[in-house]
Amino acid sequence: MSKQPIGVVGLAVMGRNLALNIESRGHAVSVFNRTREKTDELIAEYPERKLVPTYTLEEFVASLEKPRRILMMVKAGEPTDATIAALKPLLDQGDILIDGGNTHFTDTIRRNQELAKAGLHFIGTGVSGGEEGALKGPSIMPGGPRDAYDLVAPILTEIAAKAPDGEPCVAYMGPDGAGHYVKMVHNGIEYGDMQLIAESYAVLKQVLGLSNEELGQVYTEWNQGELDSYLIEITSKIFGKKDDETGQYLVDVILDRAAQKGTGKWTSQNALDVGAPLPLITEAVFARVLSSLKTQRVAASKVLAGPDVKPFSGDRKAFIEAVRRALYFSKVISYAQGFAQLRAASDEYKWDLQYGTIAKIFRAGCIIRARFLQKIMDAYAKAPQLDNLLLDPYFRDIAANYQAALREVVIQAVNSGVPVPAFSSAIAYFDGYRSERVPANLVQAQRDFFGAHTFERVDKPGSFHADWS
Amino acid sequence: MSKQPIGVVGLAVMGRNLALNIESRGHAVSVFNRTREKTDELIAEYPERKLVPTYTLEEFVASLEKPRRILMMVKAGEPTDATIAALKPLLDQGDILIDGGNTHFTDTIRRNQELAKAGLHFIGTGVSGGEEGALKGPSIMPGGPRDAYDLVAPILTEIAAKAPDGEPCVAYMGPDGAGHYVKMVHNGIEYGDMQLIAESYAVLKQVLGLSNEELGQVYTEWNQGELDSYLIEITSKIFGKKDDETGQYLVDVILDRAAQKGTGKWTSQNALDVGAPLPLITEAVFARVLSSLKTQRVAASKVLAGPDVKPFSGDRKAFIEAVRRALYFSKVISYAQGFAQLRAASDEYKWDLQYGTIAKIFRAGCIIRARFLQKIMDAYAKAPQLDNLLLDPYFRDIAANYQAALREVVIQAVNSGVPVPAFSSAIAYFDGYRSERVPANLVQAQRDFFGAHTFERVDKPGSFHADWS
Repeated sequence: MSKQPIGVVGLAVMGRNLALNIESRGHAVSVFNRTREKTDELIAEYPERKLVPTYTLEEFVASLEKPRRILMMVKAGEPTDATIAALKPLLDQGDILIDGGNTHFTDTIRRNQELAKAGLHFIGTGVSGGEEGALKGPSIMPGGPRDAYDLVAPILTEIAAKAPDGEPCVAYMGPDGAGHYVKMVHNGIEYGDMQLIAESYAVLKQVLGLSNEELGQVYTEWNQGELDSYLIEITSKIFGKKDDETGQYLVDVILDRAAQKGTGKWTSQNALDVGAPLPLITEAVFARVLSSLKTQRVAASKVLAGPDVKPFSGDRKAFIEAVRRALYFSKVISYAQGFAQLRAASDEYKWDLQYGTIAKIFRAGCIIRARFLQKIMDAYAKAPQLDNLLLDPYFRDIAANYQAALREVVIQAVNSGVPVPAFSSAIAYFDGYRSERVPANLVQAQRDFFGAHTFERVDKPGSFHADWS
Repeated sequence: MSKQPIGVVGLAVMGRNLALNIESRGHAVSVFNRTREKTDELIAEYPERKLVPTYTLEEFVASLEKPRRILMMVKAGEPTDATIAALKPLLDQGDILIDGGNTHFTDTIRRNQELAKAGLHFIGTGVSGGEEGALKGPSIMPGGPRDAYDLVAPILTEIAAKAPDGEPCVAYMGPDGAGHYVKMVHNGIEYGDMQLIAESYAVLKQVLGLSNEELGQVYTEWNQGELDSYLIEITSKIFGKKDDETGQYLVDVILDRAAQKGTGKWTSQNALDVGAPLPLITEAVFARVLSSLKTQRVAASKVLAGPDVKPFSGDRKAFIEAVRRALYFSKVISYAQGFAQLRAASDEYKWDLQYGTIAKIFRAGCIIRARFLQKIMDAYAKAPQLDNLLLDPYFRDIAANYQAALREVVIQAVNSGVPVPAFSSAIAYFDGYRSERVPANLVQAQRDFFGAHTFERVDKPGSFHADWS
């Protein structure tokens, strides 16, 4: 019986598509699923492909070349622990387990330590791109022991998305939880991008009264320029889609209650832990939570009046351009926050993350793929330890040239009663970051007054306490 | 040998002041500290007080009436676990351990369960008011078994602060972690209050150029009206304080780098967990983090230019009043978010929190004590299960009358390049909460487009997926 170079455990949509992707590069793949139906379905659907079905974990493990390469695509949390526990006694020293699930990085750190003790390699990897990415080429963010990564790098490189310059969208992120951490921040950034686009939509619709057709045109145009990205592209298409049942535009039929799967929340919670300011993405997460309180919002809308709004009387075309600039500059600010969090985490967890490489592998395959990631790559190529993207000359120029537009859009929205939590948070962060002096001296005075928490002075080092009474 | 009705373990400043407070109500108090020096110091300083020194935990436990009442004032985390482990074998069924430290509520839930198994009662209690409050009357937020609370309620009631109407600022919060949870949210609210005051200071100073003397007058005046509160009071005094060394105003000598002890962070992290929108307090936490990046801010201030700012040309007195209104309305919004989080947590952890009672015990003793807490009490007296404070008629009127001022201040700040993350977040939340429709329909369309995450419809129940291609 021939042995396969790699196997996939878990044949839900992501697992089966990754198996098909690997097979399409010329590798036979052993497959296993907890219930045999999914295995049989896959084999029946693709009888001509080199997929080798197995029906027990013993059979699955026995079917693999050594060192065994096992890609687990099972649910994060308990199911992943259960799968590892079932596989562990069947494996030999030097075998490689790859967790491609949506795992919290702290679980990945723990599993790395546990499996290293047993002589097993554990690679926790982010995989972004949804179903289609998994099948045709995702962005892949692996973390774990470097030597183990090298043993799976050839296959991961083959199945990864390719950037416009032909470079594969996979790279070694760092030890233990680094890969899943980068994927978590990727998802947080995705929350920010989506909220910013949603706010641009709300402003264009509520201030200018743009129709769905006009909105579709606006986003199509924006996608030709510096905002060129997957999320803007699908947004432009969304506004053209009609509902089969009612004939209305589908976007107007969809309930305004956003769901979430928790990775945005994790990003914000960890930003608070590592002490990295991440207000924009956090506002995006809270905006989803607020959207989910639909019943309360409907009730509140009947009793809480907004401002008196005058019809927009300015230059409509100029305002649309202002919204575009506000969106782009806010996006820059959001990525500046996200990448600064990566840096804080890299210091905290001793990962030595390569920020340019991260931007590089985000350029294709994943949900946040966008032309402007090249600019982030370029910035870190020039200054690998850049404190903040806003300090790079390209982004500094964006700040200089686009801040007036962002201020204009926030002001228009606040005057019109249109909620723009992410846009507002962007300009507040920008003004805070570029402020030599913020009013935290008063906060420290208050803390020392009521709790003797002490303060620092501007004129000499040390901790001081005043007698305030 | 006579036995004492209560003992205090841990004689750092909070512990010793609480011991003195209890003694001042006519109760003899056994005291114990890990190092005997602190015990001896306390006894030497107050030889005439009924404080009974003990030097081993055995001696301490033996000196107490049964059921024993032991107030632990030790560091949160490991030291608290170590103290419990040392005490546990010395105690008898029915004895009561009270943790008055700054403990995360999940630790309190765990300890409750562990000690209940041993037949011991565990009360986790928030204590707010700093050193002076501990000595003269703090606000006390106990949680744990109700019957155990009843056994310590008389003493806690005696030592608690008294509200203006004479009511003691202590009440049973709920089972297990409820007390420490309420204290955590109290602290989060405190972060929000302090950031809002700091932003009002920044706007008054940077837009109007008010001197410290004028600022002191403004806050003194504000403290006469609906903003009447401890934090406004100390703020007014801070602006009058001169530095002994330089003769300058001390507030200008204090470095603008705010520290934190983590309870604000916990509040935000838990808001994300229970799904309660808490953007304002979270912006306040991130503002402290951003303030701490002083070196980066100084460097950024040299390369990131702000807007062209024209000198303020409006009515200065009217603008000061607008800032006052913006501050009060933002404070209302912050408490609306904080109390909504309490409600979400009460549902999540099954605590049956009494929101009016919580507002009631915040009225004196604690850092956030303020006249307006009476309005929150009144709101919940009328509607104990109110979804959001903004829906109460009093607060609805504040929203109606003050939102124009908040919008004006945010716009002025954004135009002037003054960072106002909390003010901006307040108006964004208000406009979001009162919006029947928010742009989350687009977010759901995007999620369904790239990940087949499905969406709900406005016209019928169920989950739907569209073929977007």
